[in-house]
Amino acid sequence: MSLLSVDTALEILLEQAQSAGCLEVEELALVEAENRVLAQPLLAQFAMPPWPNSSMDGYAVRSAEVQAGQALPVSQKIFAGQNPEPLAAGSCARIFTGAPMPEGADAVEMQENTQELEDGRVRFVQAVPAAKFVRPKGQEALPGDEILPAGIRLGPIELAMAASLGCAVVRVRRQLRVAVASTGDELVEPGQPLAPGQIYNSNRTLLIQSLKRLNCAVIDLGILPDDAQQTRDRLAAMQDVDLLISSGGVSVGEADYLGQVIREEGELDFWKLALKPGKPFTLGRYQGVPVIGLPGNPTSSLVTFLLLARPYILTRMGVSDPSTQSFVVPVNFAMPVAGVRREFIRVALVEGRAEKIGNQCSGILRSATQSHGLLELPENTTCAVGDRLRFWPFSSLLN
Amino acid sequence: MSLLSVDTALEILLEQAQSAGCLEVEELALVEAENRVLAQPLLAQFAMPPWPNSSMDGYAVRSAEVQAGQALPVSQKIFAGQNPEPLAAGSCARIFTGAPMPEGADAVEMQENTQELEDGRVRFVQAVPAAKFVRPKGQEALPGDEILPAGIRLGPIELAMAASLGCAVVRVRRQLRVAVASTGDELVEPGQPLAPGQIYNSNRTLLIQSLKRLNCAVIDLGILPDDAQQTRDRLAAMQDVDLLISSGGVSVGEADYLGQVIREEGELDFWKLALKPGKPFTLGRYQGVPVIGLPGNPTSSLVTFLLLARPYILTRMGVSDPSTQSFVVPVNFAMPVAGVRREFIRVALVEGRAEKIGNQCSGILRSATQSHGLLELPENTTCAVGDRLRFWPFSSLLN
Repeated sequence: MSLLSVDTALEILLEQAQSAGCLEVEELALVEAENRVLAQPLLAQFAMPPWPNSSMDGYAVRSAEVQAGQALPVSQKIFAGQNPEPLAAGSCARIFTGAPMPEGADAVEMQENTQELEDGRVRFVQAVPAAKFVRPKGQEALPGDEILPAGIRLGPIELAMAASLGCAVVRVRRQLRVAVASTGDELVEPGQPLAPGQIYNSNRTLLIQSLKRLNCAVIDLGILPDDAQQTRDRLAAMQDVDLLISSGGVSVGEADYLGQVIREEGELDFWKLALKPGKPFTLGRYQGVPVIGLPGNPTSSLVTFLLLARPYILTRMGVSDPSTQSFVVPVNFAMPVAGVRREFIRVALVEGRAEKIGNQCSGILRSATQSHGLLELPENTTCAVGDRLRFWPFSSLLN
Repeated sequence: MSLLSVDTALEILLEQAQSAGCLEVEELALVEAENRVLAQPLLAQFAMPPWPNSSMDGYAVRSAEVQAGQALPVSQKIFAGQNPEPLAAGSCARIFTGAPMPEGADAVEMQENTQELEDGRVRFVQAVPAAKFVRPKGQEALPGDEILPAGIRLGPIELAMAASLGCAVVRVRRQLRVAVASTGDELVEPGQPLAPGQIYNSNRTLLIQSLKRLNCAVIDLGILPDDAQQTRDRLAAMQDVDLLISSGGVSVGEADYLGQVIREEGELDFWKLALKPGKPFTLGRYQGVPVIGLPGNPTSSLVTFLLLARPYILTRMGVSDPSTQSFVVPVNFAMPVAGVRREFIRVALVEGRAEKIGNQCSGILRSATQSHGLLELPENTTCAVGDRLRFWPFSSLLN
């Protein structure tokens, strides 16, 4: 069986995600919409700012009336939030940052370039050019401008933008409902005693927490035992699930109860990926629900989730660009033997250079906790100290 | 008044944060500890893995007994989770990935390098060196190893690591309680009608959502009106607050009611930062509670929050390294005139190169929504196309 490239695997996954159809739209208050996906473009309903305003604390003037040394009486004082009178001819207006320009005024001089005279008038040190320190009406947006496109995830900046448009609620896609299962009789949940041959289940925590970062609704199926009937019952009880993600089990022929049950009610493709760590990967369908089966080794599970399941999930969520931000960085180590699989190496950035961290076995999670992200070494490629390779920060991958 | 450098401002802030004392410790279930700060190191209580195990599906053998072409009977079958019998001399054991090695066996051959014979024996194509496909006991950790240091934020990978150590609960710092206030009579909350001269409040949303990403407990003080007594009452009603963050107002002398009230009950330092956007910044104390006053312009508020308030808050939370991941990238634009302030330019990365986005005025938030992060142009420095400058991704800054 030949290896499937990561790129081809991702292509197949994204195609399936796109053809799965859109999630329903719901209206949420801004404060509840963090990390949701915008379902329709957000348009400006009015000019922003709605009126020209001052970008300084100073004096609003008719620029044509001001020469160097000119003194003008102060005819009004305008704070932000006030609605000023038109500017009386031959006068200036005390004005503060963000306050609307009075009708007739076309410029502001900052207070540092003025002197208050004893008679209350203000002397201007220099002439004031038109438009100085004035933010024009509509500088940020005109009515009808598309401010935020559909298909973006709403973070703090996007939500603040929506607030500045006056939106108290936004129309977003509902949460994707993802069921998470671990398989294998060797697994025990933390807090329970370990019998001989058993290990603690880390993938459940890894997957649930990573899915929560994506703002998915998680249905925790716990550990599926190595028993066909119990697995059958557990899956049959799932309701309103958009995706089932499992880790472990599906690659092991003889003890593959989950795979058997899925095949009874659907289909299952088994891939050998040209990916290290993370060779075994399954994609299937159980009673119409898409199934992604990740390998059981913790780092294989992590890498396949981040590189393949995550962009699939983002696409299902309605995100128009599911790609992850990456950077090209110099490496501080050598990999003199080329592999046939694309390798993602756990690295820390030290003064901008990627350092290989500890034990890179797929069963080892500890080195991932000491890393800043994954360094991509393409298939059939070696690397030497100083080479530049693509780095995928965990801060982007787990965003 | 001379400008304060960003570095000096950050130094002062971090010093104050460090001297503020540690937050109390609490025990949380793993599932609730996401983005909390670990209060004490997490040590391995047992060897990981607890016993040598197979990293392949195959056959466990005594390596000395296997030559090329050798056939051995299969004396047992070992699944992951089982506790095997010692390996009978002159036999091999069917073994699956993650299953414990039987006593006496010292190597595993993958099934692809074997043939099942009709009599049930297994023929080995080649000799099997000792230790092949065996994960030794304690490969990941030995009892007493420090696996996670105190002072780290617990993300999905760290929580999964804690799970693999068997920890059902972790000891973390309690949430930092941050009160958020906006000031200014010009501000209106989204969903309300705008009167002439008014604008919608975006900073409240920006700050609350950014603080939630840090897993702070937010106390929303809303908009403080331009009125000393109401401001006094609102602040006096605060309870159990570790930090007050305000935006706007404090820089405007004549309408500075918040500053006045803080000074009545504490102290206030007003800084002019060598920072663009984000010149005005205040640091103070109200009845013993630290106060950070951010500028009112949306992007000034964003930049000062991310560069100064965020590392201060992380340090208060108990994070030992509050720095943010940044990268050096080539720029695709020129800034031919050097400024006296360090400038943070909203940029998008296009094929790895930083492109300047739209309108860079401090009053404009829209260009931040179109950016991937901030590009740092040091004070008194110009830049040309192709120069390499430091880039701060929003995915790290808002992490």
